[in-house]
Amino acid sequence: MRFYGYYRSSAAYRCRIAFNLKGVVPEFVPVHLRKDEQRRDDYLALNPQGLLPALETGGRLLTQSLAIIEWLDETHPDPPLLPKNAFDRAYIRSLALSIACDIHPLQNLRVLNELKSSFGQDQAGLDAWCRRWIEPGLAAFEATLAKSKTPGAFCFGTTPTLADICLLPQLYSAERFGVEIAGYPNLTRIKASCDAHPAFAAAHPSRQPDAET
Amino acid sequence: MRFYGYYRSSAAYRCRIAFNLKGVVPEFVPVHLRKDEQRRDDYLALNPQGLLPALETGGRLLTQSLAIIEWLDETHPDPPLLPKNAFDRAYIRSLALSIACDIHPLQNLRVLNELKSSFGQDQAGLDAWCRRWIEPGLAAFEATLAKSKTPGAFCFGTTPTLADICLLPQLYSAERFGVEIAGYPNLTRIKASCDAHPAFAAAHPSRQPDAET
Repeated sequence: MRFYGYYRSSAAYRCRIAFNLKGVVPEFVPVHLRKDEQRRDDYLALNPQGLLPALETGGRLLTQSLAIIEWLDETHPDPPLLPKNAFDRAYIRSLALSIACDIHPLQNLRVLNELKSSFGQDQAGLDAWCRRWIEPGLAAFEATLAKSKTPGAFCFGTTPTLADICLLPQLYSAERFGVEIAGYPNLTRIKASCDAHPAFAAAHPSRQPDAET
Repeated sequence: MRFYGYYRSSAAYRCRIAFNLKGVVPEFVPVHLRKDEQRRDDYLALNPQGLLPALETGGRLLTQSLAIIEWLDETHPDPPLLPKNAFDRAYIRSLALSIACDIHPLQNLRVLNELKSSFGQDQAGLDAWCRRWIEPGLAAFEATLAKSKTPGAFCFGTTPTLADICLLPQLYSAERFGVEIAGYPNLTRIKASCDAHPAFAAAHPSRQPDAET
């Protein structure tokens, strides 16, 4: 199993947490996003989308972090990353997707590069753009958790799920762009639980072999 | 079951196709996105994210089109919207997510409104921005289909899956923003198969009760 990632990619970070939770150790192939290595011919031949992450397994390629994680959960069921009940599974997927579809895509590197080149945005403009999407997204995540009143250290009970796997990397990005979460008791509690969990801690960008200081 | 949607929302369009394929007919509640009805207090009390679509079932609320469709597929398994094999399931999910995470979020209404108000973009600027993401996204979708060489009328064989459910609404948006797909034999074939399928045809925005001319 070969995993193509980049230390600062949120989507790769999600997969790393999932691999760690499952005790799966794929071979790691770093693809440097800021050097545009994902646009090189050899990588495009493998993954025509030219994005990260990607997972090679059995001679075939899987892309998209959530598809990779659901595949991992189906092929390595222990510990489960989704609850058993259909509604609860959908609820966890909806939390994950509220980050993966409605926050993260608007603040990733290729979008920020486009805002820089097409609309002349400087770093302050880019940070404001990111906060414009991260702030209401995390506020809604907190409000949804508060409404659901599920007790436990994580988004859903006492063990991590796909929702926590998407949340922690988004909180890491939030910090980079100056978004404060101290006013959100659920997010604060869950972040502390994740930070204290070895599978999450080992997946942190700063602890990857391709990390830059 | 009560479904909150808007005729022109791509994400609601996906859900409508899935409901039709499953023969499920929820009560429809129109929420007018261009009149900002999704930001009204009564809707926010229901769905703090203030986005569409949403599904009320058994007194609880589900959000996020892909979570709703996976829930529908788990609770109404016939006909299945995902293959049985774990890798194939992940492949279909990755096609769906390549649209739901990497194309659609960049061209939806709230993002276009922000580009208008913050960066003074006119309609031509907005159309160019949308094409900037739709064109490479669909080109990569075509290349991925071409690589996988799966025969059949749809993305994966002879029956529709979650990938087709995401693709057709994206092709509808592509047309609105002036993106041409004639050069893509797989997309062209699949679009024709979807257009000829009653579940897809009945889900078309122009055929919804809240459609405007």
